[in-house]
This record gives sequence, C-alpha cells and structure tokens, in this order.
Amino acid sequence: MDTSAPTEQQIRPDDLATRDFLVPHDELRRRAAALQARLAAAGIDLAIAQSNADVGYVAGSILDGWVLVPASGEVRVLARRAAARVQAETCWQVDRMVAVKQLVAELGAMGLDRGRIAIALDVVPTADYLKLAGALPGAEFVDLTHHLRSVRAVKSEWELDHCRRAAEQVKEAMHTVAYQVVPGHTELDAQRLAEGCLRGAGHQGVMRMRRFGGEMFFGQVCAGANAALPAALDAPLGGAGLYPSAGKGASLQQLRAGDLLVLDLMGCHNGYLSDCTRVIAVGGIEAVPEDLLAAQAWCVSVLEHVSDAAQPGVAPSALYALALELAEDAGHAANFMGVAPDQARFVGHGIGLEVDEYPFLARGFDDPLEPGMVFALEPKLVFPGRAAVGIEDAFIVTESGVEALPAMPRDVLVAG
Amino acid sequence: MDTSAPTEQQIRPDDLATRDFLVPHDELRRRAAALQARLAAAGIDLAIAQSNADVGYVAGSILDGWVLVPASGEVRVLARRAAARVQAETCWQVDRMVAVKQLVAELGAMGLDRGRIAIALDVVPTADYLKLAGALPGAEFVDLTHHLRSVRAVKSEWELDHCRRAAEQVKEAMHTVAYQVVPGHTELDAQRLAEGCLRGAGHQGVMRMRRFGGEMFFGQVCAGANAALPAALDAPLGGAGLYPSAGKGASLQQLRAGDLLVLDLMGCHNGYLSDCTRVIAVGGIEAVPEDLLAAQAWCVSVLEHVSDAAQPGVAPSALYALALELAEDAGHAANFMGVAPDQARFVGHGIGLEVDEYPFLARGFDDPLEPGMVFALEPKLVFPGRAAVGIEDAFIVTESGVEALPAMPRDVLVAG
Repeated sequence: MDTSAPTEQQIRPDDLATRDFLVPHDELRRRAAALQARLAAAGIDLAIAQSNADVGYVAGSILDGWVLVPASGEVRVLARRAAARVQAETCWQVDRMVAVKQLVAELGAMGLDRGRIAIALDVVPTADYLKLAGALPGAEFVDLTHHLRSVRAVKSEWELDHCRRAAEQVKEAMHTVAYQVVPGHTELDAQRLAEGCLRGAGHQGVMRMRRFGGEMFFGQVCAGANAALPAALDAPLGGAGLYPSAGKGASLQQLRAGDLLVLDLMGCHNGYLSDCTRVIAVGGIEAVPEDLLAAQAWCVSVLEHVSDAAQPGVAPSALYALALELAEDAGHAANFMGVAPDQARFVGHGIGLEVDEYPFLARGFDDPLEPGMVFALEPKLVFPGRAAVGIEDAFIVTESGVEALPAMPRDVLVAG
Repeated sequence: MDTSAPTEQQIRPDDLATRDFLVPHDELRRRAAALQARLAAAGIDLAIAQSNADVGYVAGSILDGWVLVPASGEVRVLARRAAARVQAETCWQVDRMVAVKQLVAELGAMGLDRGRIAIALDVVPTADYLKLAGALPGAEFVDLTHHLRSVRAVKSEWELDHCRRAAEQVKEAMHTVAYQVVPGHTELDAQRLAEGCLRGAGHQGVMRMRRFGGEMFFGQVCAGANAALPAALDAPLGGAGLYPSAGKGASLQQLRAGDLLVLDLMGCHNGYLSDCTRVIAVGGIEAVPEDLLAAQAWCVSVLEHVSDAAQPGVAPSALYALALELAEDAGHAANFMGVAPDQARFVGHGIGLEVDEYPFLARGFDDPLEPGMVFALEPKLVFPGRAAVGIEDAFIVTESGVEALPAMPRDVLVAG
C-alpha cells in the first residue's frame, strides 16, 4: 500500500453540512439507557443493532457495521466504512472493523461472546445470522426486535418535534396539489407535483419500512378504479403504478372531473416519517357522486371517533375493535380497509423512523398506549372497480389524549 | 364473515393500466428454464424466490409471498395478498396462501418438502428462514443467490430494451440540469431538478439494491468537498445528504462558480436500472481548476481504455486489474475510487433489476463476460476536503465488444 495515501482524515461535527440535525448526545444516551433497561429485564447480555433504522436510532448515524449495546456499560460502534464520519455523528466510540471474524474477536475481548445475544431476526439476513451464530458457538441468539421497537415507540420531545416537521411537509404538498391539479392531468402528474413539493420542504427522500419487501416512495396518489386496485403492499389502497415492477400508486391514467383523487403522502424529516391522507375533488365538488362524498364523510367521522377514544391506558386493539364496530353499524364492513379477503387487518399503525412502528391498531396489540407514542389512523373504504375514499392523520399520544399531525382541516380539498 | 362481501374480483391483464409493460409469457418461461437448468445441475430440488427483485424476475409481478421453482415442472406462485392481480400479471398458476404452515403443507402435497431447497440467504430475513427450516426438518437448505444472480446477469433483448430506456431517462436529466443550474443553487436544487426530470421521463421511483442496508434514491448530486465526504454506502463518492438519517448525496450547500458538480444518476424503467455519471462545470468551465479538469479527463480515458478491453471471454477481475494499473501508472492510486482505507474495492458493477447485480468488476470475479451482460463502469477520483471527479456509463456486452448506455458525449457539461 502506498503509505503516502491520504487516509481518512478526522472529520469534526462542524465539518458536516448536516451539523444542525445531528442527534444530541443526551438523546442518544437516553435511548441507550432505555434499551439497556429492557435488555437487563429480559436477561439479555448484548444487543447488536444492524439495520439502517436500528443503527440510526442507537448511534445517530447510518452506518455499515454493528452497534453493540451491552446490558450495562458503554455502547460501541464498529463501522465497515467511513469510520471518521460516523465518529463525527455519534457520541459512542467508533472503531473500523470489516469482517465478522474481527467482530467475533472483539466480542471475545469484551467478554461478550457467550451468553444471550439479541439481534433483530426480522430484518437481519439469514446469511449474516448463520455466519455470526456459527462463529459464536457459546452464544444463544434471541430476538431483539420487540425490545428495540418497544423502546422506539415512546418518543422524546426531540423526536416529536421531527414528527411535527414531517407532517408540515405533507400539509404543504396537499395544498399545492389541490391548487394545481386539473382534469386531464395524470395521476403521475399529481404525484410528481407532490414529490417535488415534499423535497422542497426538506423531505429526505429515503423512506423506511421494516417489513420484508416493504418499499416506500412518498406514498400513493390514485383516483377512481385505480385507487381500488389491490397491491402487494399491506395497505388499504393499492394502485397500478407505472409498471408491474413497481405495482403501487400513481399510473398514467388521466384524472376526470368528478374523480376523488386520494393522496396518501409521507413526509420525512431527519428520518422521522409522517403519514397523511386527504382527497381532492378534481374539477370541483359538484361532479363527485354523492354516495362517495358520504363515504368520505363517514371515514372522517370514524377518524374522529377513534382518535377521541385514544389516550394513555387504552389498548390499540380496542381502537381497532371500535373502528370495526363503527363499520359494521354503518353497513361498510365489506368495504372497510380493502376488499375481502385482504381487508381490515388494521386501522392504524405506529410511525417514526419506520412506517410500520409500534403500536399497531390491530387485533392482538393489547399493550396500552403511553404518552409519546405516535400512530397514524387511516379509516378507508374501497369500492372495487370504482373508487376508494379515506382519511389519515398521525396522532401523538399526550398525557390526556392525542395531538393531531398535521393540524389541518379534514374536508375534501377542491381542485381545478 | 359477511358472505355478501365483494370478494376480490377477477382482474384481466387488459384491466391494468400497466398492461403494455407486463413481462411477456415467453420471457418468463425463458427465465424459469434457465434457472431450472442451473438448479438441476446443482442438485437442487426446489428454489423459493421471496424478495421483490427475485419474485419480480421469476413471476413478472411484485408480490408478497413465495414463488416456487422446482428443478423440473411448472413454476407456482403463492401470494399472501392481491392474488387476482398477481394472476393477471404472470403466466404461472397463482394461489392465495397466507401462513408458512400452508406453504409447508403445499410443499408436502407437491412432494417437495424433503431434499435440497434453495432460498436467497443474503436477503431472506433470519426469522423467515428459521420458521421455514423448523417446519421442514426433512429438507436441506442451500443458497439460491449465486444461481439466481447468475441467470439474471445474462439479459434477453426484451430486458436490454428496458435497460436502454432507463439510460435515456438519465441522458435527458443530465442535459436539463446542465442547462438550468447556476451558482447559488444548492445541491438539493440540482438533485430535485434531476428527480423531477427522471420521473417525467418514466422513472418508476422505487430503486432496488440487494445488499443489506443498501438504499437508493435516484443517485447522488454533490459538489466540492461534499462529493468527497465518505458515506456508509459502498460507493466511491458519498455526500452529507440533508440529515444524518439519510447521510448520502445532495446537501443544502450552495454551488459556486468553478465547482464541478458530480451527477451520479439512476434511471429505472419497469424495474431495470441505469447508472450514469457526468460532471457539470458550474458557472462555466473557465473557473474550474485545471488539475481537476485533468483528473476528470483521466477518468474518461480510463473508462474508454477499460471498456475497449471488455468483450465476451474477458474476466471482470481483469478489467478491475487494468483500471488499478492505469491508476498506479498515472499516480492516482491513492485517490482512486475513494479514500483509504475504503478505496478501490471495485471499478464497476453489474446492473439490472438491482444496482448490485453480477458481474462485479472487482478482485475474485473471474467468470468471463458473456453477451447480454450489462455492467456500469465508474472510474472516479476523490480528493478529500476538496472535490471528487469521475465518469460512469453502463455497457451491454455484445458478441464482439460492448455497447455504451446512454449514447451521449463524455465531456464536461457546462452550466449557467
């Protein structure tokens, strides 16, 4: 190797164009302490975070490598690349390490190569697990996922501020699209307008979903029968997309006067996502069929009923049950949250660094809401071959109820 | 369950807004036959494709579920959701199936629950593997990845046509940005312009990378010291990004006259990616330091030397070695493809449904090039704290050499 090579230089936080958005050190220490308390309670000796969302949460830096969180003691970061930059972004000690055998040697030196080691089994690829488990025959591997997601579900004020800013991005985009879209535009035209607006408002581009195969791209903008076409994604609305290879969301279908254009849009500020749905009456509200407007108004009433019932101590599953009950009472059960057999598996989902965070408003999610949790609530109705309607806001759980994100009216927006 | 519920209706291919882009049935059959030949040769009884790129390749539809490819016989698709739509997109029989235990029962009925089963260990999450392996104690699990990637590496004329269209998207975006960007614009302004242009040209939005943690978002648009900042992504250039949570690419840094703005952009047409890098002299070429222009010209010469040497029968590793040799001869070794210790691990990569396809132009990739392969070649130089330069085109391997994508000059573009 050429010893005159300019090796990676020291990088100071102030050198980074992102310096104003670095995760504060006390915030990183709060997160680590919360996770360590859960690890200790579960008898886990060491957690190893590896996915982008997981390392980003614990280290404050997106890195290729491993973040080691022992049940007690200091967090350590092992980065395969760009170690000096990662060091500038985190409060933890960063070392460069490339190979699994180096990691294994390091764990041995730390006395952590035996005992119970937690990794996120739902996201870590099988090959990585097999390699690590094969190299650590004295360790028992358990699942980190539930512990880390439970910690992440309860957000600090610093995090909530980012959630609010993400919601503001979407609010701006909704109004811009509503102002500009006219009959004859394609769904893609409307989606592109929203994308440009979101990026201009500070959307980071990259959006994260935890579930295997989950791909996010700003959300879906669809109208008419296309909004009612089911897709691979586990979401109430689908859409054809531009190609089979991205079979979701906006198509090249032209909007017509009387269409209800559904915008299910995601903001993203420094990793924190928002999720919001509004509908736009294309070409004015007069041409929209009255039964669709009534269905839309019903979705808004469900959102308001269910969010009124949300507060600390209430089970997410109870909110799901309430929504289902309202759908049955109104005769909407068959169209609620999709079309059989894929319909109505949930009515909302936690949101944060991933779009599918805890808590899920679904059957089986009985751990009660706590202040600082954030969830998106999205009652929707699907009429196959015809149209879809719906509404969505995110809600921060407060000490006594919820705070809606974004703060904007829930009326049908009128365009063109 | 309400039996009056509108269950999922039959969907015909002609009902889909994407009907013109469905993968032809003979193309799907060609792919399956090529994979089956490899499975039989390797003594594998069954392959199960699961990631979006893998199921999309074999089934022609992005679906949540499993695509079963026995070593001989018909491919079958088991979809958790939207089965009627998947059926409209594929030539194979589609059945709705939700749970792993249903899959296991089906494999038993097919006589495929024993023997050697291949899954893609590099992408399938550990939890899914453990569940399946636990339910199939009579099976031996082996890695599908190398076989499927090897088949995918050699593209048909139908696929190459899509690669060419993706490259045309980028060509258009390059010229638009070069025409419009002026000193005072931010990197994000230039990136947004490129994004809007790519989407308008038919870019599908979603871009795929196979490597765990790999996140693609149209590529990187950076200038000056920001282009030289290393990132987590295994790529020569990095960039701060807007936030630590998306620490890659464009920042809010303003462009200055004399900057070389590097655009490393990806097109994507019906799943097929392109990858192209050009530099723009912001505010005119006169203000750009001469040594950077010379470094840029050197990168172009490397691209031309290496691509001239590429033809069927040549090992990708030999092209990598050639590029390294050129860098050493020119005194550029220390800055080639990044900064030590992360530099120069590759000089190009295959490209197709994922940005990190076979073949890699790197050490150890000795299987010779074949007609129909597509690779991106990207010689770049990084000057820490100052700037980065480089060039990139994709190349289709033909019977006698290569065809460059896109067909456009490799000169420095001049803006403002």
